[in-house]
Amino acid sequence: MEVMKVLHMNKGDGETSYANNSAVQGKIITTAKPVIEEAILGILCETFPESIGIADLGCSSGPNSLLVISEIIDIIHAKCRNLGRPSPEFRVSLNDLPGNDFNSIFESLPAFFKKQKQEKGIGFGRCYISGVAGSFYDRLFPDKSLHFVHSSSSLHWLSQSSPQCVLDAYSLQFQNNFLIFLKSRAAEMVAGGRMVLSLMGRRSIDPTTEESCYQWELLAQALMSLVTERLIEEEKLDSFNAPYYAPCPEELKMAIQKEGSFIIDRLGHFEIDWDGGVEELTNTTLLPLSRGQRVAKTVRAVVESMFELHFGKAMMDLLFARYAEMVDDYLSKNRAKYINLVISIIKKDN
Amino acid sequence: MEVMKVLHMNKGDGETSYANNSAVQGKIITTAKPVIEEAILGILCETFPESIGIADLGCSSGPNSLLVISEIIDIIHAKCRNLGRPSPEFRVSLNDLPGNDFNSIFESLPAFFKKQKQEKGIGFGRCYISGVAGSFYDRLFPDKSLHFVHSSSSLHWLSQSSPQCVLDAYSLQFQNNFLIFLKSRAAEMVAGGRMVLSLMGRRSIDPTTEESCYQWELLAQALMSLVTERLIEEEKLDSFNAPYYAPCPEELKMAIQKEGSFIIDRLGHFEIDWDGGVEELTNTTLLPLSRGQRVAKTVRAVVESMFELHFGKAMMDLLFARYAEMVDDYLSKNRAKYINLVISIIKKDN
Repeated sequence: MEVMKVLHMNKGDGETSYANNSAVQGKIITTAKPVIEEAILGILCETFPESIGIADLGCSSGPNSLLVISEIIDIIHAKCRNLGRPSPEFRVSLNDLPGNDFNSIFESLPAFFKKQKQEKGIGFGRCYISGVAGSFYDRLFPDKSLHFVHSSSSLHWLSQSSPQCVLDAYSLQFQNNFLIFLKSRAAEMVAGGRMVLSLMGRRSIDPTTEESCYQWELLAQALMSLVTERLIEEEKLDSFNAPYYAPCPEELKMAIQKEGSFIIDRLGHFEIDWDGGVEELTNTTLLPLSRGQRVAKTVRAVVESMFELHFGKAMMDLLFARYAEMVDDYLSKNRAKYINLVISIIKKDN
Repeated sequence: MEVMKVLHMNKGDGETSYANNSAVQGKIITTAKPVIEEAILGILCETFPESIGIADLGCSSGPNSLLVISEIIDIIHAKCRNLGRPSPEFRVSLNDLPGNDFNSIFESLPAFFKKQKQEKGIGFGRCYISGVAGSFYDRLFPDKSLHFVHSSSSLHWLSQSSPQCVLDAYSLQFQNNFLIFLKSRAAEMVAGGRMVLSLMGRRSIDPTTEESCYQWELLAQALMSLVTERLIEEEKLDSFNAPYYAPCPEELKMAIQKEGSFIIDRLGHFEIDWDGGVEELTNTTLLPLSRGQRVAKTVRAVVESMFELHFGKAMMDLLFARYAEMVDDYLSKNRAKYINLVISIIKKDN
């Protein structure tokens, strides 16, 4: 299987960087926090490991990478204090594709550790954080080494960028990918270990519903407009497929049952505004950004690496400006929300 | 203790990058290979772990980072084939300071894994490689998780850049650093685990011997010449100390005995030419480089980050050009070799 290597969030901390344009993904993490908390307390009910293995899959870079880890550590630390016992040893693995900006995560570690020590004092257990570069559609960690696995805003990206633009093929590709994902994690997790996955999805079984991918439809329209103006060749557009699929809850359930190593503890969804419902501060302009511009910046930080490779760097500013206009137009007439699925599953004994 | 955070090898793959100027360090790794082999076979004599923990401390980036790991895996794999048993699970950690270019290591992993699979076929065990950013003068890994630890061309760098320029202080600083290093590793290693350390050193007990640091003496002279020409302020030079110390074998022995967790299996040294004795290919000029220029490029790739921070980026080209001239002059009259110490130690049972 050819792994999709081109998708990585925009690096660095410039205006179009993912680090500065990931408020939506941050909001998603925060919204899913109660599910993470429930899962972790579920693990600690059953057993109290002296050394706890934690992995965040598709960690990206920027403030969100350590946000999740810091939340997880906070939950465990608070529970230990309640029980009057010392914190376990934390073995934390941050995973993303090899193109991810791990350097910037590592550079923020000293400040992260300092803050942890200040907040938690000497009661804070040892914490070892490592970076693991590779596709989560393959094995990443040693056998039975993980107690808690988290992944947010990543699993809607498929491993292959080559399926034909036919919805059945995408659905099949998602099923295959998700099965391999579950199989790999099943080998890596201890019995009773838990996994919280949060990803873009849709409520209806019909995959053509607007809510599942209308943000891409608009981006396709923006590309189309550049084709009409002969700025992009039509065949370039025809040969491009974004490896994205927003599944419905039933599809997740089906794959989990088929794989067989996990029990579903929780499966829900929440809505989130296209712009995260937050006014992002920008230090590069004094004019407030329109909602369309904010959505375009968020989407650009995620997909630019992939689009640049296919359509060329020169088109990017124009493409995302056009896209911002189209999003503004759409938002003036429609209520636009992403649907985010959250699922919490438990590794069976066996 | 303030950890020295500024020393990282030059990033990327440009002309002054460490990746393109680390042939000397590569030569050192290759020369120490028999000691690595002996240590690893020593581990496998005693026990045959199903999962083997390996760490390379101060891995830097560029071709050398994966060279050591690939040698270690080759040795273990060959031994397993001889014994007719499957390869163990490899858990490999690559460590360096947070400023290290981990991104470039991670980007070379897919090709590394592909090569391993091609060479070793299906008999090749699973191999998990992770990046760990932090100072090795502190804990880096979970308790008793490592079987083999390697470090090359790193331990002559001290943790603090602040000792006064008095040789006694440097010697003391080295002793303290090395003790903390040993204590940290003692906690992380299994009983019977082995560690091979290779670092710059000197043969004589007298720390003022030319062989221990004459390359720095010449760099100091190059800086001095820029002070004379008023290109660098004299006080800038006075306030600068390179956190480097080349110990003698007795100093290593003393620290190991004092710490108490390790038995010395081997302690030796070898000489290596200042330019590694190799003609480096350069794709940026058709003129062959002089030996001085090659030495200057090697040294620059290592220390530039530190010098740039103190003396400013603008001075760097001039400084290292001046340095190259001085090295050429010195080499025309002297036989200049680095002394590289290699020590192999075994973690005691307890």
